[in-house]
Amino acid sequence: MTYCVGTLTAEGLVMLADTRTNAGIDHISTFRKLKIWKRPGERLVALMSAGNLAVTQAVVGLLEERMEDNSVDPGETILGAPSMFAVARLVGAAIRDVREVDGPSLEQGAHGFNATFLLGGQIAGRKLRLYQIYAEGNFIEATEDTPFFQIGETKYGKPILDRVMSFGVPVKEAAKVCLISMDSTLRSNMSVGLPLDLMVYRRNHPGEYIERRIAEGDPYFEDIRHRWSEALRSAYRGIADVPLDG
Amino acid sequence: MTYCVGTLTAEGLVMLADTRTNAGIDHISTFRKLKIWKRPGERLVALMSAGNLAVTQAVVGLLEERMEDNSVDPGETILGAPSMFAVARLVGAAIRDVREVDGPSLEQGAHGFNATFLLGGQIAGRKLRLYQIYAEGNFIEATEDTPFFQIGETKYGKPILDRVMSFGVPVKEAAKVCLISMDSTLRSNMSVGLPLDLMVYRRNHPGEYIERRIAEGDPYFEDIRHRWSEALRSAYRGIADVPLDG
Repeated sequence: MTYCVGTLTAEGLVMLADTRTNAGIDHISTFRKLKIWKRPGERLVALMSAGNLAVTQAVVGLLEERMEDNSVDPGETILGAPSMFAVARLVGAAIRDVREVDGPSLEQGAHGFNATFLLGGQIAGRKLRLYQIYAEGNFIEATEDTPFFQIGETKYGKPILDRVMSFGVPVKEAAKVCLISMDSTLRSNMSVGLPLDLMVYRRNHPGEYIERRIAEGDPYFEDIRHRWSEALRSAYRGIADVPLDG
Repeated sequence: MTYCVGTLTAEGLVMLADTRTNAGIDHISTFRKLKIWKRPGERLVALMSAGNLAVTQAVVGLLEERMEDNSVDPGETILGAPSMFAVARLVGAAIRDVREVDGPSLEQGAHGFNATFLLGGQIAGRKLRLYQIYAEGNFIEATEDTPFFQIGETKYGKPILDRVMSFGVPVKEAAKVCLISMDSTLRSNMSVGLPLDLMVYRRNHPGEYIERRIAEGDPYFEDIRHRWSEALRSAYRGIADVPLDG
């Protein structure tokens, strides 16, 4: 399984992914699910994926092959497309291309053709965008009303996002909420696991971004986990017990 | 959808269920999912259900019909069975009976034969038990190590249970944690809804129990919801932001 969360805020973009993949309970590996492409000063494109690893790797592989293929119009590649909307369409088209090849045999298995992506980024002079792209290749866009998207094992980490995430929170705070949301998921589902990949981007600085890998023992993340756990315990202790009698 | 949670503690048993059922987004109704049978002073048996409403109602209907049928050995009924283990087997057998009739046609639909139960209770002189009974009719039992079970839409409300629920918490506190877990579910999934049915039972008092229906506007539940929301917000504000720079 996988958990990825992306948030669009007034200040910028936060993307967070775990790295655990599993095929059954005894075949667990670490794969990076956050991919970043950039032209410093001109564009930053980040893609996170959930679903069948063979499918998501094939999609990323196809997108990269096209960037290196001189016979492909640069405007039809991630690093040359004129807008993030065009980039989202390229990702969608790559998903459909992979589906054409691998879909029929996957549909015969129990899990089907299963892949979802979060695509975020900005091209100089254009707006910062965050999209969720479906296995069908179509997509929806985050807005001020709905500033976050989740893919993979989404439910455990959703309550905290529902309560505190909004378009107005600063990116440092948005990153913190995403990490808390990830922590809830890590605790409740062992098929989501460390290390994590975190990317934070401030609007209108294409090419500049902060990327961190958070591994087991990372002092800040350990501190969040501990404090959040303590805070929840003390919060629930602070609420009066159910008045059962009388 | 449905959310039910049951907890076995040193002091007793807490069972909490919502009442919303839906067949598609535009066919939402209220059905009681917590059923209680008792012989005051001798036994208390509580059953909560999730899954296909026609199936779960048929199972309860069959169990009740057998109680009223003079040709059925009383030892083979909920109110006459010698132990909670025997009661769990009766529920399992009723599920299998319903499956024999309705299973084949349900398996042809998208959702299949889908029903899960939480069964809790005590018979005088015997131990308090909590079981989770599967659509297959077999079951597992809660223990000191794993004192709670959830059925239906379980994920949103699991993180708080994972963090604070244990066999040692008093029933009043266990009821509070169940309500907080329910609140997280209500907020994140609109197919789970009020009113709620709460039952609290203190070990070794078969026949005595507290039952409450919690409807929209219930002052205690409103207070929990408000305080928990505030506590989460202040907890997350209390954690330092991600140290992104430097």
